[in-house]
Amino acid sequence: MRITVHRKAHFNAAHRLFRKEWDDDRNFEVFGKCSNPHYHGHNYELIVSVTGEPDPKTGFVMDLKILKELIYAEVEEALDHKNLNVEVPEFKDLIPTAENIAVVIWNKLRNKIQDGHDLEVTLYETPRNFVSYKGE
Amino acid sequence: MRITVHRKAHFNAAHRLFRKEWDDDRNFEVFGKCSNPHYHGHNYELIVSVTGEPDPKTGFVMDLKILKELIYAEVEEALDHKNLNVEVPEFKDLIPTAENIAVVIWNKLRNKIQDGHDLEVTLYETPRNFVSYKGE
Amino acid sequence: MRITVHRKAHFNAAHRLFRKEWDDDRNFEVFGKCSNPHYHGHNYELIVSVTGEPDPKTGFVMDLKILKELIYAEVEEALDHKNLNVEVPEFKDLIPTAENIAVVIWNKLRNKIQDGHDLEVTLYETPRNFVSYKGE
Amino acid sequence: MRITVHRKAHFNAAHRLFRKEWDDDRNFEVFGKCSNPHYHGHNYELIVSVTGEPDPKTGFVMDLKILKELIYAEVEEALDHKNLNVEVPEFKDLIPTAENIAVVIWNKLRNKIQDGHDLEVTLYETPRNFVSYKGE
Amino acid sequence: MRITVHRKAHFNAAHRLFRKEWDDDRNFEVFGKCSNPHYHGHNYELIVSVTGEPDPKTGFVMDLKILKELIYAEVEEALDHKNLNVEVPEFKDLIPTAENIAVVIWNKLRNKIQDGHDLEVTLYETPRNFVSYKGE
Amino acid sequence: MRITVHRKAHFNAAHRLFRKEWDDDRNFEVFGKCSNPHYHGHNYELIVSVTGEPDPKTGFVMDLKILKELIYAEVEEALDHKNLNVEVPEFKDLIPTAENIAVVIWNKLRNKIQDGHDLEVTLYETPRNFVSYKGE
Repeated sequence: MRITVHRKAHFNAAHRLFRKEWDDDRNFEVFGKCSNPHYHGHNYELIVSVTGEPDPKTGFVMDLKILKELIYAEVEEALDHKNLNVEVPEFKDLIPTAENIAVVIWNKLRNKIQDGHDLEVTLYETPRNFVSYKGE
Repeated sequence: MRITVHRKAHFNAAHRLFRKEWDDDRNFEVFGKCSNPHYHGHNYELIVSVTGEPDPKTGFVMDLKILKELIYAEVEEALDHKNLNVEVPEFKDLIPTAENIAVVIWNKLRNKIQDGHDLEVTLYETPRNFVSYKGE
Repeated sequence: MRITVHRKAHFNAAHRLFRKEWDDDRNFEVFGKCSNPHYHGHNYELIVSVTGEPDPKTGFVMDLKILKELIYAEVEEALDHKNLNVEVPEFKDLIPTAENIAVVIWNKLRNKIQDGHDLEVTLYETPRNFVSYKGE
Repeated sequence: MRITVHRKAHFNAAHRLFRKEWDDDRNFEVFGKCSNPHYHGHNYELIVSVTGEPDPKTGFVMDLKILKELIYAEVEEALDHKNLNVEVPEFKDLIPTAENIAVVIWNKLRNKIQDGHDLEVTLYETPRNFVSYKGE
Repeated sequence: MRITVHRKAHFNAAHRLFRKEWDDDRNFEVFGKCSNPHYHGHNYELIVSVTGEPDPKTGFVMDLKILKELIYAEVEEALDHKNLNVEVPEFKDLIPTAENIAVVIWNKLRNKIQDGHDLEVTLYETPRNFVSYKGE
Repeated sequence: MRITVHRKAHFNAAHRLFRKEWDDDRNFEVFGKCSNPHYHGHNYELIVSVTGEPDPKTGFVMDLKILKELIYAEVEEALDHKNLNVEVPEFKDLIPTAENIAVVIWNKLRNKIQDGHDLEVTLYETPRNFVSYKGE
């Protein structure tokens, strides 16, 4: 009997999309106003989903208080109120698209989640644009 | 051609999380303020999802009016404005975590849904904490 | 130049609506299933709104971090995961309707908010039922 | 490494549910007030989900600006502010249930999406009734 | 001590915006695709707000169950799943803009609400377009 | 008969809160992590509300298509995907708090709105923090 538990969190960050090897015109052509060199930002909404068997003693797949603290320690401390391009090492050579941010978050959380439990992250960049990744 | 139809419903209930074999300290250690002996409560939001082939005559996988009535009769009548621990027989010996409530709801609905149709339930305990279960 | 700043918070609680002087039948007649003696509960969503002149030095009517902490200390600590009828002194002789909870919250916050600033509270008992009170 | 990107859109349309071969009584029996001959309508909310490998150069599974334009050209231009029964050729002999509208939208988009990418559409007819289809 | 209680409801309807004295070109110029002669439709979300003194016996400004039934009887029965232009007498000579629908709803409810209580209606035509009216 | 029409819009931007005359420590003390010199950002949600008499010919207080275009031209073009501190002249000597951004938006729109119509703007910096301003 496998159940999925989900926890919602959020963080605010600045970013810009650009590829160092390309000049400003090429970046603007590909990334549009998201390549603005002065940055722009988002309220990122994050859903972390963990699938596994509930513990027969507690009825919990995973204590959501612990998941909440884990998201705080691993994700919010690292990304909240940060400039992703400048201050977050994972994006030194990786463009902070929603896709790549989701993969970075998944990697930060994966080895903190119990073996045998599945992990998926869904990241809203805006209420209309979002991505999901489950490590496959 | 398989399509999923989803119906959203809600109910309000009181509960507490505690394990009879454990004393109050142990319960507080595991369940925190959710173990408050005087109960607390939630507006539970429920999404019931049924997957199957649409009927070629009606274009419906399942008439959502019927699904609405089914959720009312099987779930809302049983759980709405109730104290889950005290008044709902399924939780006599089962801790009413979101995970367990989702399984109880799935079991209540499964044999009312057409054979060959898949069933999934998603249950929001709060806007930030939710679970999903599809009987696997 | 008067601006209103709003801060959203939430808490979960159990309650029942009943009037001690009335018997169960009369209570059920007036309050319906909300009078269930075993309690039910809600995820209360709260919006606290403060109106005043922004401070020319900070551009803040009121620092929302401070308002957040104030709501936590005065409202969430007092009401979250509580049984309103049993554990909250203000409801010893006051029925915990949404209207009365809103007035209790307003009274708890009023003297912590700067003189000359106006205060309004909006309280969602469910996504479809809510109340607002501004102390008039 | 497969990631899903999602884009939300909406359109408003009128429709009625009825089967030409059936008389009004039979239609009312099956479709209830949705069979009203004078039509009624909805704000349809649409989520289009595309799954594939991110492009290593851009970090995009699919540029969401392009997906937005594609949804506009293929779905909104065809369905927004339209009477689905009268003005949309696909529903000449197909009842515009949410299920069928989702399949029609999926078919409109499928051959515009890169081969090897998976496509799913989720369509909200109301905030409480919605369907999803992934072409299986 | 005056408190406002709010109740949310919804209904689905078809309409078109056009002025009989104007030809189709003029109507299209003023109302755009909202003047489509085959109609389009919306999920209207309605908030009804009643302001007054709470009853000291019940703690209610107005029993929200009664307000819910009143909205059902006066508004939903009259407008839900209807074609506003064709089937609702109030719009025989009145264009069913969101503004006018809000006024019609306010007028339907006003004399059912206790004297001395204030009434306001807020009507969402789409999640981005809405109107409010308080009879002033 | 005065009615309020509301139109919702959004824009994404980067900002930081700091006062030039203060050193970094003092800025951090007052503005916390919002003073991060590398900026952070938000998805700002904006509601623009215009109150007036509906035009008896059209039933509109103000054509919402025109209001939508006005918000696009005056607000989104100026602020979307911008660094408020660096690229928006109004914030050269004004701290871009939500309060001040709301006032700047109100001033941009006021003289484009018909005389005699009232104007209010509500600005969400996050789903939990928002401000409103009506020019009083």
